[in-house]
Amino acid sequence: MQRIYMDFAATSPTKPEVFNVMKPYFSEKFGNPSSIHSFGQLPRAAINSSRKKIAEFLNCEPSEIIFTSGGTESDNLAIRGSILAIQQNSKITIKPHIITSSFEHHAILHTCKYLEKIGLVEVSYINPDKEGLIHAADVQKAIKPNTVLVSIMYVNNEIGTVQPIAEIGKIIQKLKIVNCKLKIVFHTDAVQAVEYFDCDVKKLGVDMLSLSAHKFGGPKGTGILYVKKGTPVKAIQTGGAQENNLRAGTENVPGIVGMGKAFDELQITNYKLRNKKMTKLRDYFIDMTTKKIPDVKLNGSKELRSPNNVNLSFKNAEGESILLNLDQAGIAASSGSACTSGSLEPSHVLKAIGLPDEEAHGAVRFTLGEKTTKDEISHVIKNLVEIINKLREMSPYK
Amino acid sequence: MQRIYMDFAATSPTKPEVFNVMKPYFSEKFGNPSSIHSFGQLPRAAINSSRKKIAEFLNCEPSEIIFTSGGTESDNLAIRGSILAIQQNSKITIKPHIITSSFEHHAILHTCKYLEKIGLVEVSYINPDKEGLIHAADVQKAIKPNTVLVSIMYVNNEIGTVQPIAEIGKIIQKLKIVNCKLKIVFHTDAVQAVEYFDCDVKKLGVDMLSLSAHKFGGPKGTGILYVKKGTPVKAIQTGGAQENNLRAGTENVPGIVGMGKAFDELQITNYKLRNKKMTKLRDYFIDMTTKKIPDVKLNGSKELRSPNNVNLSFKNAEGESILLNLDQAGIAASSGSACTSGSLEPSHVLKAIGLPDEEAHGAVRFTLGEKTTKDEISHVIKNLVEIINKLREMSPYK
Repeated sequence: MQRIYMDFAATSPTKPEVFNVMKPYFSEKFGNPSSIHSFGQLPRAAINSSRKKIAEFLNCEPSEIIFTSGGTESDNLAIRGSILAIQQNSKITIKPHIITSSFEHHAILHTCKYLEKIGLVEVSYINPDKEGLIHAADVQKAIKPNTVLVSIMYVNNEIGTVQPIAEIGKIIQKLKIVNCKLKIVFHTDAVQAVEYFDCDVKKLGVDMLSLSAHKFGGPKGTGILYVKKGTPVKAIQTGGAQENNLRAGTENVPGIVGMGKAFDELQITNYKLRNKKMTKLRDYFIDMTTKKIPDVKLNGSKELRSPNNVNLSFKNAEGESILLNLDQAGIAASSGSACTSGSLEPSHVLKAIGLPDEEAHGAVRFTLGEKTTKDEISHVIKNLVEIINKLREMSPYK
Repeated sequence: MQRIYMDFAATSPTKPEVFNVMKPYFSEKFGNPSSIHSFGQLPRAAINSSRKKIAEFLNCEPSEIIFTSGGTESDNLAIRGSILAIQQNSKITIKPHIITSSFEHHAILHTCKYLEKIGLVEVSYINPDKEGLIHAADVQKAIKPNTVLVSIMYVNNEIGTVQPIAEIGKIIQKLKIVNCKLKIVFHTDAVQAVEYFDCDVKKLGVDMLSLSAHKFGGPKGTGILYVKKGTPVKAIQTGGAQENNLRAGTENVPGIVGMGKAFDELQITNYKLRNKKMTKLRDYFIDMTTKKIPDVKLNGSKELRSPNNVNLSFKNAEGESILLNLDQAGIAASSGSACTSGSLEPSHVLKAIGLPDEEAHGAVRFTLGEKTTKDEISHVIKNLVEIINKLREMSPYK
């Protein structure tokens, strides 16, 4: 049976080129980068070379790149680390206010809700519109004198909608110029954006940006938090002095080397070219499905959307049943974030864009990858037609 | 030039057997373990198989094993996570008290000092004796009605001294039986102990235990916190529901699989046999050095000592110079923890056992590994004799 993977937003295979450069750092160049002897030198040089190329990619200084264990840790460091810095600043006596969106990844959302619950912060959750878009004006309106942090994701992980990060960045910059007492840190979770959108931190106007290697051909267990020089953030994991005292613990050398190579691979082609090519495939997927299957709805904006994301709700067909049938046909898709699989609750993202429970329960996410072909998509749609027909036959609502 | 690595306490090469089992989990069995489709099944089964065998090794339940990004994260989760659980328990209104030692790894020490500094906790730092041993009676004496956590390392990372963990465990158990209101959690950082000492958590009487894979032939970027069922501890990294809601973030599947294999490798021989074999090599190292070089002092107990640790102070020879000369001769040793290399401060461990600054500055740590041979040791000593002679010739104190 042909097996087709269309869940690239959950994770991606490590590219062979990436794995090849990692290999020697397990058993040969295995030293601890903090060791001063020659066994430590090669790994130290290797992680600094990764740091340098990632900094070039993001248009920042190497010292502004903090290596973490993944996107979730990066998000936690951004949120918790900022609040820790505020708590330790004796000049700040007001309760800090965070602005985020109601459809962030759980690494942001659960962290904000937790800090809110224990009374450390006040949080405003901006709702996206029905298309799944955050309006910069809504963020602006939510800013208060005690706002210390704005965290808005770049590309939504479930419905692929693209948020106006650069526009929000400009607004915050402008407000800070007008009122120099305002010290707002702007963070974006760009985990789903890095392959297809511009991640130049200066153009985006962000102070912090999270990335995860395994989402774009790098290995699991490694990620990045970009932290602009001067941004108040404190370590949430203490111990050794690694990562500029912002992240203690022996560096995952093979992981960091692999992540560096994954960035090299991204730079072989331009993100605009990748975006254009992938948009064609995505639109073929959407158009063919809506043509062949009645009562299908695309969740989220069609225009302001990641080129690899197709999120569809099928009337009178339950998402989990569709996924199970697809899986039996060798096709991997998902009902939303992998982190929440197994939960019977409808997706918080689909609820945030106003989907009623039955539509949210009928949603399936297909996320395409670099090697996805038109043939694979045709094969998936062929199966999807059969599955939806079968499920609708069985549905008590037909 | 023959290159000899004698810094196994800093890190170890990933064993070829370990690397081999990791390989397929990068690019083939690459799925996200949280995904419900078949691509997620193999990685999910693989991490659960690792969890099961590690639980057998530690004599606990698989659900009591939390996978982390390494020893530092495990230590942070143990300390910070326990204090978070206390903070969120509205029944507890007193300021929590932690007992630890003054010569813990910085992952523990800096974390305790940080929590103390921000006023969240009160901390007692037990001093080791001149041999580098913590006395269980001193721990007992330090216990107060508000003591919530005791964290004492199993084997010291710099001088290799072995602490009476099982004895402390028994004392705490007994106190809890006498006074059922006392809820003390007992944690040990066993990062340097796992190869040569019994890590049966029931025999040790610990509630939490930290381990790091790269210290015993596993890969960097992965570790464990054993958390006994019912122990009050809260996640310090939030997001997805991974690891029983105690550690959010996509699992580092190859790392966890590799760590599982590293435990298999440990079980091929018994720790007692490894200990016995290594003790002979260590004692040969110590005896030959003290025989061939005058004015050498072994730091830490000779009897209650890790079989792979040799920590020596050389009179009128500076540690960093010795290391530099050794490195030029192809020999890797260290002056203490890799995490603090480059610092000009004398080691906090050597200061804790009462070494004057000049002796602490003269200390060099050699840590042996599974493949270390007698010939390698002889070669190191030969070089050491020449280096010490040369440095003493140059010393203004001679």
